[in-house]
Amino acid sequence: MDAHDTPARPQGLPATRYLSARHVVEIVRRQGLTACIAGIAERIEADFRRWHEFDKQARVACHSDGGVIELMPIADDSRYAFKYVNGHPRNTVGGLPTVMAFGVLADVDTGAPRLLAELTLTTALRTAATSAVAARALARRDSRCMALIGCGAQGEFQAVAFRDLVGIRELRVFDVDPGAIAKLERNLAGEGLRIRRCANTAEAVRGADIVTTATADKLRATILTPPMVEPGLHVNAVGGDCPGKTELHRGVLEAAEVFVEFEPQTRIEGELQQMPADFAVTELWQVLAGRHPGRRDAAQITVFDSVGFALEDHAALCWMQDAAETLGIGGTVELVPRSPDPKDLFGVLRPSPARPHEAARRTAFAHP
Amino acid sequence: MDAHDTPARPQGLPATRYLSARHVVEIVRRQGLTACIAGIAERIEADFRRWHEFDKQARVACHSDGGVIELMPIADDSRYAFKYVNGHPRNTVGGLPTVMAFGVLADVDTGAPRLLAELTLTTALRTAATSAVAARALARRDSRCMALIGCGAQGEFQAVAFRDLVGIRELRVFDVDPGAIAKLERNLAGEGLRIRRCANTAEAVRGADIVTTATADKLRATILTPPMVEPGLHVNAVGGDCPGKTELHRGVLEAAEVFVEFEPQTRIEGELQQMPADFAVTELWQVLAGRHPGRRDAAQITVFDSVGFALEDHAALCWMQDAAETLGIGGTVELVPRSPDPKDLFGVLRPSPARPHEAARRTAFAHP
Repeated sequence: MDAHDTPARPQGLPATRYLSARHVVEIVRRQGLTACIAGIAERIEADFRRWHEFDKQARVACHSDGGVIELMPIADDSRYAFKYVNGHPRNTVGGLPTVMAFGVLADVDTGAPRLLAELTLTTALRTAATSAVAARALARRDSRCMALIGCGAQGEFQAVAFRDLVGIRELRVFDVDPGAIAKLERNLAGEGLRIRRCANTAEAVRGADIVTTATADKLRATILTPPMVEPGLHVNAVGGDCPGKTELHRGVLEAAEVFVEFEPQTRIEGELQQMPADFAVTELWQVLAGRHPGRRDAAQITVFDSVGFALEDHAALCWMQDAAETLGIGGTVELVPRSPDPKDLFGVLRPSPARPHEAARRTAFAHP
Repeated sequence: MDAHDTPARPQGLPATRYLSARHVVEIVRRQGLTACIAGIAERIEADFRRWHEFDKQARVACHSDGGVIELMPIADDSRYAFKYVNGHPRNTVGGLPTVMAFGVLADVDTGAPRLLAELTLTTALRTAATSAVAARALARRDSRCMALIGCGAQGEFQAVAFRDLVGIRELRVFDVDPGAIAKLERNLAGEGLRIRRCANTAEAVRGADIVTTATADKLRATILTPPMVEPGLHVNAVGGDCPGKTELHRGVLEAAEVFVEFEPQTRIEGELQQMPADFAVTELWQVLAGRHPGRRDAAQITVFDSVGFALEDHAALCWMQDAAETLGIGGTVELVPRSPDPKDLFGVLRPSPARPHEAARRTAFAHP
């Protein structure tokens, strides 16, 4: 129903494929969630390895009282991508999601937009995929138990990604909202994970191999404090992702080796905003490209201070574009006027006798 | 044909209106080009007057060998806008426009995207409207003759805007490409403008009240040199709009009072890039808001060093949104997943028994 009746376009002007939220749901259903997350993870890992081929920058934020709206552009030699994403913690009160996102892929050579896609669901997939890629490189290989603090929109996606890509079999969950825990349990029933509700963060974290923090409140929180952190733990800190929003006590960072996506952005937005500017961190791509060993021994504490980086959206958009093409899913949008002569923009206002049905339509709408 | 069959959405989640290139052509045809440019000009002028209500920043550019892709975000208290726009001078060789643009309006309060619209045609309208708004404030009131140097995609829009809003009756045109001049003459036939082809820029400029430069080549050009500039001239410099692309000899700027849209951006992108950082300029909003007199006397030379600013796109998007609503034009796009519970993003992957036609559709697409 979203596919448009698109007439033949002049030579050169490519269509812009359109993937609505419903199209992306359809792609995930047909490919299967496991295959989607694994496919996106593979692409993200490959793209992090070719880090220097990307033209990178920190995202561009517009802050207001209620939240933030951001644009995240990035490009490699062939494809430019950007994501629009908001963060409005009070949205759920009015029945709206806290985070809404969409994005575009364009040809670097011509600037022509080639894909417009929802990125709310896709962001959840790519965030979980990125967390799992990082954990595969940084957590102990025998990790089987993960504490999940925060059972919001990201929770189930993190759980599935860590089950499939890291080998997690047991989930210890805590959320200040019991309804959120119940929702997560319902959604993950029959998914092959042992889920244990915990009374608080400390109970959830005790004995876990990995801790994922994915809480939503925009404030300086200390979900995880140094006494909770046992040797060998890997912390996947997902929730602290904008100025004023952190989840870890700074002592946890001091006790750990900290890995980030793109250092200039994480210094502003991540847990790192609590630390002095010279606090040493390692960019994840260095581990994935074999330039840094990652975890050094079984007792080391590692933190992935994740804020979400445009490269991950670029990878996810490319993956979705390929999947949509393979499955034949998606419509088109006409974002660029079609003119027989690209130098004659004014000409698009003139009825064209060469396209009779168009001319008729135009006459019907002509100004009296 | 672009309108979608949209099911009822949960409370709170607004639709995103979609204005394709064809929809915008329809709006312009039904409202009339004169009314469109006048309406957008009025909105731009009003928005420049409330300059301090906007959260402004220079655009974010991604450069490649073939061109540039830019994002231009801006917001006032209620509406956030951004424009995607490219500039690839060699595109026309492959049948593609040099410039392609689209943009979005979103609610600042929630981040919900409310309008997705083509902005290629709309950019031509708003650029011409902005030029006319500036000329109304800066050119001599008795200006009747305009030299138009460069008869590309912008040419006719500039001509119509200056005819309707400034009182121009005679056009002296020059372009290095005779085909471009012929196209402009064809498009403006019967539009009530006396059009005179000139053999070169000097001939076109001689005796003109206003000179509009709108050339496309990305290089340091000197279309206009000091000997050509007569007392009282207003120069509307539209074409020099990115690093490395200028149209005026620096002597022209030295002889004139120079007006700009947003100084930090124009220093990088405008004719101003040729000048020292302390070369004095005035932002246009100051003239429109009555804080600066604009033209001081009939002999003064004025230059509007226009590069295009996000505020103009914000105004144009708002105008298009209103026009589309009034005329009932446009479709919708589903950029955000619809979930009965905004906290349950994972739930959108689950078939919903509450929507039978949906469930049936989903079953048809279910993975075997």
